[in-house]
Amino acid sequence: MSPSPHTLSVPPPDIVRSAYVDLVVADLARARAFYVDLLGLIVTKETEDAIYLRTFEEFIHHNVVLRQGPQPGAAAFGYRVRTPEDVDRAEAFFAALGCRVKRARDGFVDGIGDAVRVEDPLGFTDEFFYQTDHVDRLTWRYDLHCATPLARLDHINLVTPRVQEGCDFLAALGFRITEDIRDGDGVTYAAWLGRKQTVHDTALTGGDGPRMHHLAFSTYESHHVLALCDRLGALSQTSAIERGPGRHGVSNAFYLYLRDPDGHRVEIYTHDYYTGDPDNPRITWDVTDERRRDWWANPVVPRWYSEASSVLDLDGIPRPLDIREEPREERVVVGADGFTVDTATDQETKIGSQL
Amino acid sequence: MSPSPHTLSVPPPDIVRSAYVDLVVADLARARAFYVDLLGLIVTKETEDAIYLRTFEEFIHHNVVLRQGPQPGAAAFGYRVRTPEDVDRAEAFFAALGCRVKRARDGFVDGIGDAVRVEDPLGFTDEFFYQTDHVDRLTWRYDLHCATPLARLDHINLVTPRVQEGCDFLAALGFRITEDIRDGDGVTYAAWLGRKQTVHDTALTGGDGPRMHHLAFSTYESHHVLALCDRLGALSQTSAIERGPGRHGVSNAFYLYLRDPDGHRVEIYTHDYYTGDPDNPRITWDVTDERRRDWWANPVVPRWYSEASSVLDLDGIPRPLDIREEPREERVVVGADGFTVDTATDQETKIGSQL
Amino acid sequence: MSPSPHTLSVPPPDIVRSAYVDLVVADLARARAFYVDLLGLIVTKETEDAIYLRTFEEFIHHNVVLRQGPQPGAAAFGYRVRTPEDVDRAEAFFAALGCRVKRARDGFVDGIGDAVRVEDPLGFTDEFFYQTDHVDRLTWRYDLHCATPLARLDHINLVTPRVQEGCDFLAALGFRITEDIRDGDGVTYAAWLGRKQTVHDTALTGGDGPRMHHLAFSTYESHHVLALCDRLGALSQTSAIERGPGRHGVSNAFYLYLRDPDGHRVEIYTHDYYTGDPDNPRITWDVTDERRRDWWANPVVPRWYSEASSVLDLDGIPRPLDIREEPREERVVVGADGFTVDTATDQETKIGSQL
Amino acid sequence: MSPSPHTLSVPPPDIVRSAYVDLVVADLARARAFYVDLLGLIVTKETEDAIYLRTFEEFIHHNVVLRQGPQPGAAAFGYRVRTPEDVDRAEAFFAALGCRVKRARDGFVDGIGDAVRVEDPLGFTDEFFYQTDHVDRLTWRYDLHCATPLARLDHINLVTPRVQEGCDFLAALGFRITEDIRDGDGVTYAAWLGRKQTVHDTALTGGDGPRMHHLAFSTYESHHVLALCDRLGALSQTSAIERGPGRHGVSNAFYLYLRDPDGHRVEIYTHDYYTGDPDNPRITWDVTDERRRDWWANPVVPRWYSEASSVLDLDGIPRPLDIREEPREERVVVGADGFTVDTATDQETKIGSQL
Repeated sequence: MSPSPHTLSVPPPDIVRSAYVDLVVADLARARAFYVDLLGLIVTKETEDAIYLRTFEEFIHHNVVLRQGPQPGAAAFGYRVRTPEDVDRAEAFFAALGCRVKRARDGFVDGIGDAVRVEDPLGFTDEFFYQTDHVDRLTWRYDLHCATPLARLDHINLVTPRVQEGCDFLAALGFRITEDIRDGDGVTYAAWLGRKQTVHDTALTGGDGPRMHHLAFSTYESHHVLALCDRLGALSQTSAIERGPGRHGVSNAFYLYLRDPDGHRVEIYTHDYYTGDPDNPRITWDVTDERRRDWWANPVVPRWYSEASSVLDLDGIPRPLDIREEPREERVVVGADGFTVDTATDQETKIGSQL
Repeated sequence: MSPSPHTLSVPPPDIVRSAYVDLVVADLARARAFYVDLLGLIVTKETEDAIYLRTFEEFIHHNVVLRQGPQPGAAAFGYRVRTPEDVDRAEAFFAALGCRVKRARDGFVDGIGDAVRVEDPLGFTDEFFYQTDHVDRLTWRYDLHCATPLARLDHINLVTPRVQEGCDFLAALGFRITEDIRDGDGVTYAAWLGRKQTVHDTALTGGDGPRMHHLAFSTYESHHVLALCDRLGALSQTSAIERGPGRHGVSNAFYLYLRDPDGHRVEIYTHDYYTGDPDNPRITWDVTDERRRDWWANPVVPRWYSEASSVLDLDGIPRPLDIREEPREERVVVGADGFTVDTATDQETKIGSQL
Repeated sequence: MSPSPHTLSVPPPDIVRSAYVDLVVADLARARAFYVDLLGLIVTKETEDAIYLRTFEEFIHHNVVLRQGPQPGAAAFGYRVRTPEDVDRAEAFFAALGCRVKRARDGFVDGIGDAVRVEDPLGFTDEFFYQTDHVDRLTWRYDLHCATPLARLDHINLVTPRVQEGCDFLAALGFRITEDIRDGDGVTYAAWLGRKQTVHDTALTGGDGPRMHHLAFSTYESHHVLALCDRLGALSQTSAIERGPGRHGVSNAFYLYLRDPDGHRVEIYTHDYYTGDPDNPRITWDVTDERRRDWWANPVVPRWYSEASSVLDLDGIPRPLDIREEPREERVVVGADGFTVDTATDQETKIGSQL
Repeated sequence: MSPSPHTLSVPPPDIVRSAYVDLVVADLARARAFYVDLLGLIVTKETEDAIYLRTFEEFIHHNVVLRQGPQPGAAAFGYRVRTPEDVDRAEAFFAALGCRVKRARDGFVDGIGDAVRVEDPLGFTDEFFYQTDHVDRLTWRYDLHCATPLARLDHINLVTPRVQEGCDFLAALGFRITEDIRDGDGVTYAAWLGRKQTVHDTALTGGDGPRMHHLAFSTYESHHVLALCDRLGALSQTSAIERGPGRHGVSNAFYLYLRDPDGHRVEIYTHDYYTGDPDNPRITWDVTDERRRDWWANPVVPRWYSEASSVLDLDGIPRPLDIREEPREERVVVGADGFTVDTATDQETKIGSQL
C-alpha cells in the first residue's frame, strides 16, 4: 500500500497552473487541420512527427503537443511550477509516494527544459517543469484573430473512478476544491480543483479511469463560441460538435464541447470567476439539480459521460481502466440531464427520446 | 369547391406585415407573469380579462392580446394593411373566395379601429386592419431594457397539412416565398413567406392543422437570447425552454423556443436578412440537410414538431384538425435532426437516445 | 427655373434601395488594401482599372465599384428599381425635370444591364437599374467571415446646402423621411430618407454641396464593430478611424466612421429599426440635443462635419460647390457636440479643447 | 529619512487583492442613486450615514463603503491579506517603515474585523484585513442582472508624483509590475502592479499626488459596457461619461470612465489577461505610442489626466499635494493622445481642437 500524500514529510511542488497536454494522435495531418486550421491555435514549432501549439495569450512555448503515434491517447499533463527547485520537490514528493518517476534534465519535449514526469496515484502521467522558452504573447494581435480566438489553456478534466480519493490527492498537492457535485449519500460525482485563481486547473469526473475527459481552451466572449459553431456549420463539420453551446451551472462558464478527429474532447470555455481568496466558498451542487451541467437544463449527450481518451503511462502504454463502483451520474434518474418538466402536463418528460 | 384566389378578379389587400396575435389563455395572471415579468413586453393596456402588450420598437397599439378564455388558442392573426381601403379589399377578396367574413367598424379589440376578420381557406382566422392608436415607440428607452429587450413581433408560424397549397394561397395574397424545405420527390415540408423585407411574416410548417406553431419576437443581438436563458436558469424556470438556443439554417437567425404557461410556443429571434428585392433568390433546403433547422445540427426536440396551439374560428370554437397525408419531416430518417456522424466510428448515431 | 418634381405628370421610378456606389480612387492598389484586405468585402470581379466588390449578403453583382481615376470622387449613386420599366420611368422623370440624362442599354459598369444615369436637381449623379447579374449570396459562409463581416450596403449620405429642398425632391421620388435634425427656427440640418424598410437609403447632411458624406455598410452585432477597431490598432492603422465607435441618437445604430486612403468616408453600421409601416412616425431631433449624433454625447470630430468627397458629373468632372447659407450644425453652440455638462461644476465644458 | 522597505528585516503582509474602497461623499442620497440605481451594485448594509456595497461575484461584505462626510475623498484603500497573522505583519511592517499606524481589533467599518490602517510612504491610507463577514455570492443570480452587471472590484488607480519610487515601494510589498509607460529618458509615466493574477490590483499614474485616480469594477463582456452608455443616454445622464468606451492598449481591457456625483472617477472594465506565472513578461509601452491609453488612438479627454480625488489621512484630513516634477504624460507632444495622422494630408492633426 502506498504512503498517504498527507502524511508525507516531503513537501509538494508549488504548482502554478495546468500548462500543456502532450497528446498522441493517429493522423497528424488531420489533427493539424482541426487544431490549426479550424481552432486557430498558433504553431510555435513543427517537426515531421510533432506540432507544438499555443494560445493567443500564451508566452511559454506551447499548450499542446500533437504527436503522431500508434494510437490516440494523452501522454502527459504538464503543470508549470513556481521555481526550478519545485521540479526537485516534485521528484522527491512522488518518489516518496512510491510512484514511478522519470527526470529529464533537457526536457521531454521541445521548448521545455528540466522536467520530471510521474505516474501519479490516480494513474495519470503528470509533468512538472519550470524552464521553458518564452515566445511572443499575441494578446494584442487582433489582426491574427480568427472566428474564435483561443486565449489560454484553461484546464484539463480527468476521469477517475473514486473522485473523493482523487480530491484528497490533489488537495495534498495544494489544489483547492472550488465546486463539486454530490448527493445526499455522500457520493462525489465530480469535482473542480484549482491552483491558479479561476474555477479550476484540473477537474475530476467520476467514471472508469484513468482517462482524459477533455482539455479546455478559454476564449473571450460568448459570441466567440457561437462563431465557431457557425463556422463548423459552414464547413459541414457539425459532427465535431458534441454538446452545447450552453452555460454551465458548475463554474458559470459558457461552453462548447468538440471532438477532434481522434476523438479527444476539446472544450471552448469562457467567463468563469475569481477564486483566489483563501476562504473562497466551495459550491456544492446536488446531483439532482438539472442545472448543474447545463444552467438551462438542456440535456447532456450520453456519450459525453461515457466516452473519454486513453491516458498513457511513462512508456507510452495505455493504462488499464479501473471501473467506477460508486453510482454513475448519468444513471441518477430523478432530475438528471435530459429530464425536464413539461409545462403543458406538469409531468417530467425525457427530452430527446420520445420520438 | 371554393374559387381559386389566383383566378379571382378581386384584388387582394396590400398587406404590410404580421402585426399582432390575439391569444386566448386559460390563466391570465400566469400568462402575465410570463409575457410581462419574464419576457418584459410592454403593457399598453390592461383590463380585467385582457392585456394588450407591445414590443420596444412598436408604435401601434399592441403586438399581442392575451385574453382570458375557457381554453387556450389563437383567436386571430392580425395583419396590418397599407390603407383604410385595403380593409375593404380584404373583405371583398375573402368574400369572393367564399370564406366566412366579419366586419367590425369599431374594431374587434381595443386600440384597433375598422377591421375585418375572415376564416381563410387554410382554416386560420385572420384580421386585416389599418386604423390603430399610435403609442410611444420605446426604441431609445434603454433604461427600460430588461435582460432580453424584445424589439418587434417578427412573424407567426402556422401548421397546415398541405404546405404547397398554403403557399399558393399566400402567394395570391401577395406573399413572397423566401425559403422552403423540400425533398427530391417534390414534397414541401415547410415554407417561409414575407410581406415586409425580412425572411418572413408567416411561415407554414407541415403537419396536422390548422394550428399555430409559434409566434416570434425579434431581439437585437445573440447575447440577448443567452441572457434570457441565463435568467430562466436563475428563476428555476428552465422548463420553459423547449429548444435552443441555436442558429437556424433557414433564415440564418439565432433562435430560442419557449413554451408559455398555456403551451403556446414563443420564439426569440434575431439576425435574419434583407429580402426586399423583387428577384430575391429563394433558398430551398433539402429535407435531409441536417443543418436546415439547426445550423449546428443540434437535434430538434421531437415535440417541437408534434405540438402546436389550437386556432379558433370566428365564433371562438377550436378548429378541427385536418391530418397531414404527405411525409412528415420528423419521420424522414436519413440525416434528419437528431442524427449526426460519430467522429470516432464514422457511423451515424442518434444523439439523445442511446442512454 | 426647373419644373417642380411634385407638379410633374410623369411618375417617378419605383426605387427599391440604394444598391451601389461608383467610386473613383487615385490609387487602386491602396484602395484594394482598404476595402478587400482590411474591410473584407468580396471581390466579384477585378480588371486592370476597376474592382467590383460586394457584401456578404448581397446577391446582385456589386455594392461598390472602385475605379482608378485622376482624382478621387463619387461618380454615381446606383439605385435599384423594381422593374425594367422603371428604368424608362426614371429616364422620363428626370428628362421632364430638365435634368441631363444618359441611357446605357448595356450598362455603365460590368454586371449591370440597361441603366440610366442622371444629374439630379441636387447635383448628384444617380443611376437607376433593374438588370444585374446574380452572384452567390454568402450569408451562410461563416467560414469566410473576417473580424467584421459586412453584410449589406446600408445607405449613402450626401452633403447638400439646402436640406429641406433636398427632402422635397427625394419625397417626390418616393422617399419617406424617417428622422431629421431641426431647430426652433425651422432650419433643417440633416434628414434621413428611406425606400427600403430601414431608417434610410439616403441621408442628407447640410453643408456645402453637392458632396458625398459617406457610404455605409451594415454588420451584424456591435462587437463586430469593436473587432474592426481592435484590428486597426493591431495593424497600426488607427488613423483610418475618424469617429466612434458609438451609438447614434438618430437611427439608434451603432456606428464607426473610417476614412479610406482617398479620404472617402465609410461608415460601419448596425442595429437600426423597421420603418415599413405607411404611418411610421418621423423622429425630429432638436439640434441642441447633444445625443442626436452620439447617444452618449461623445463629441463629434469637427472634420466629420467639414470634409466630404467630391461628386462627379456625367462627364466625370467634379461638381462645383454651392455654399450652405443656413446655419451650420457644427456652429450651433449651446449643447452642440463636444459640449457636455461638467458634473463637478455643473458648467458646460467643451470636451477635447481645454488642454 | 524613512527606512527603505527593501532593507527592512520585517516581512511584508501577504496581500491577496485590492478588496474595497472607503469613499467619502458629500451627498449620500445622490451617491446612492449613482452606485445603486445606475450601476446596480448590491447593497449589503445601509445605515443613516453609510452604505456598504458589493459586486455580483463578491462573497466578502463589501467592495465600496459610501460614507457621508464634509468633503469628498478616498478615506482608505482596503487590501485583503491571506491570513489573520498577515494583519500583524502589516502593522509591524509599516511601523518599521516609520509610518503612522492604527489598529482596530473590531474593524474600522462594518462587516470587517481585525484590521490595521496605515499612512503609507506614498501618502495613501491603506487598510489590511483578513476577517470579514461572508455574504451571498450572486454569480448565478442572472435574475438580478441589470444592464451592466458589475462582477468584481478589479483595481484601484492612484496618482503619485514619482511613479518609479511608488513601484519600488509596492514591489517591496510583494506587487509584480505587469505593464508600464516609459520614455527613452527613463521616465516612468504610469505603472500597473498586481497581487492577484490579473493585470493589476493597483496602478500608479504620474501626477500631483497623493490622489485617487479611479476605482474600477469588472463586468463580463464588452456589450455590457455599451449597455451602460446606452442607458445613460436614455436617462439624460451622459455627463457622467468622461472617457470611452474604448479598448485600452495597456491591459488590453475594454473600458469606460464615469464620474460619480462627487467627481470620483469609476472605471467599468473587462477582458484583461492572466499574469500569474512567476516570469510573466512585463509590457513596456513607449509614451509616444498613441495606442497605449486607447488602442484605437482615440484622444484622451484632458481632464482625465488632470483631475482626481483627494485622499484622506488617518484623521480624515485631505492630504496636501506633492507636485510632479518629472514630465507629464499629457504634455508629451509627439504622438500623444489626441493626435493622429490625417490620411488625406499625411500630416499629424490634433483631433478635437481644429474647429
